[in-house]
Amino acid sequence: PGKRVLIVYAHQEPKSFNGSLLKIAVEELTKQGCSVTVSDLYAMQFEPRATRNDIVGRLHNSEAFNYGVETWEAYKRGGLSKDLVEEQKKVQEADLLIFQFPLFWFNMPAILKGWMDRVLVQGFAYDLSKAYDGGLLQGKLSLFSFTTGGSKEMYSKGGIGGDIRYVLWPMQHGIMHFCGVKVLEPHICYAPENVSEEKRKEMLTAWTQRLKTLWKEEPIDCSPEWYFK
Amino acid sequence: PGKRVLIVYAHQEPKSFNGSLLKIAVEELTKQGCSVTVSDLYAMQFEPRATRNDIVGRLHNSEAFNYGVETWEAYKRGGLSKDLVEEQKKVQEADLLIFQFPLFWFNMPAILKGWMDRVLVQGFAYDLSKAYDGGLLQGKLSLFSFTTGGSKEMYSKGGIGGDIRYVLWPMQHGIMHFCGVKVLEPHICYAPENVSEEKRKEMLTAWTQRLKTLWKEEPIDCSPEWYFK
Repeated sequence: PGKRVLIVYAHQEPKSFNGSLLKIAVEELTKQGCSVTVSDLYAMQFEPRATRNDIVGRLHNSEAFNYGVETWEAYKRGGLSKDLVEEQKKVQEADLLIFQFPLFWFNMPAILKGWMDRVLVQGFAYDLSKAYDGGLLQGKLSLFSFTTGGSKEMYSKGGIGGDIRYVLWPMQHGIMHFCGVKVLEPHICYAPENVSEEKRKEMLTAWTQRLKTLWKEEPIDCSPEWYFK
Repeated sequence: PGKRVLIVYAHQEPKSFNGSLLKIAVEELTKQGCSVTVSDLYAMQFEPRATRNDIVGRLHNSEAFNYGVETWEAYKRGGLSKDLVEEQKKVQEADLLIFQFPLFWFNMPAILKGWMDRVLVQGFAYDLSKAYDGGLLQGKLSLFSFTTGGSKEMYSKGGIGGDIRYVLWPMQHGIMHFCGVKVLEPHICYAPENVSEEKRKEMLTAWTQRLKTLWKEEPIDCSPEWYFK
């Protein structure tokens, strides 16, 4: 109770299975007394492209545009675009970040990748020599919750898609761990479009159940062994 | 000579190191007698978001929007948006796809991820039971050419970023291999922003040299062993 949660949600359709998972998380966490904020990226028409528009006013070097340098400098002088400042404020205030999305091509959808690219700028999320366990977002938790098209068998060792943990490395280790954010076990719903209505209901119930004891969970050990053992 | 190459390029600044790598590829491949097409995603203001706008006319199911189903149906009846049809035509005609970009967060920038999400739709790039070696883009080659922020040491086994091959899995196996496209060795320029001008020139020369014998290269064996051995 009293915990603050930011859910970054990337699905176009409220009636989708992802939409149901979002609804469950908002309801269950609110019931627990958490303060829940949702960034509904498609509804916000969130901009995924990292461009000059993210910097208000003059560039640090207008001769050759370097997105990393420009957003770092803009962050320091308070010159990032309004939509980024708003997202950063939500991140800053959150104890837990939940990412809810359908897996697209072994990865998050572009609109969510754009949120990572644009919101987690140097100076805000990490800095020179402040990365991984020293990242600037220390003290926060994260959880990747997603649906797949392929089955659990396909995403297993020996399956054609390989161990699902392989696709978690860039997201969990490369982004969250890099920023100092601890990572909870991912929540994966395999192929909800290809199972029975009963099975889908079971998956929704499992998510509700997990959320009930979420705050007692220990983060994973986000080392190469967890992913590639 | 006579080969067709599509370069999908994701950098905002022509004067950047990525811009130089693009220029080299266009010049060298053209000199070889190849026909080279460039999709300069930022210059095109390419849309990365997968939305209802990608479907022209009526939806298959307007009650609940399902992007995968709708683009598949739209592809079959010729109802995809013009920008997607143009990119698919370029892909169809190409013998080799080169992706040139800076690594952002252990992955491609959102604008390029959006190209993958929106262009490689079911029916065009893969289909029911037509995936991996049976994918619909068989007969084509691909090559991921990118720059990193971190050093080669960081992206090695035992390095904090892990083996660079870990980040190649979702892109090479999860996307290209899934569509039946063979994968050439990636071309990686480590931390060009942090090395001497001389070293940068060496990296550019190495790219030119590689391109000279590119058509004699054998694709990698895109199996889990290549990535996680």
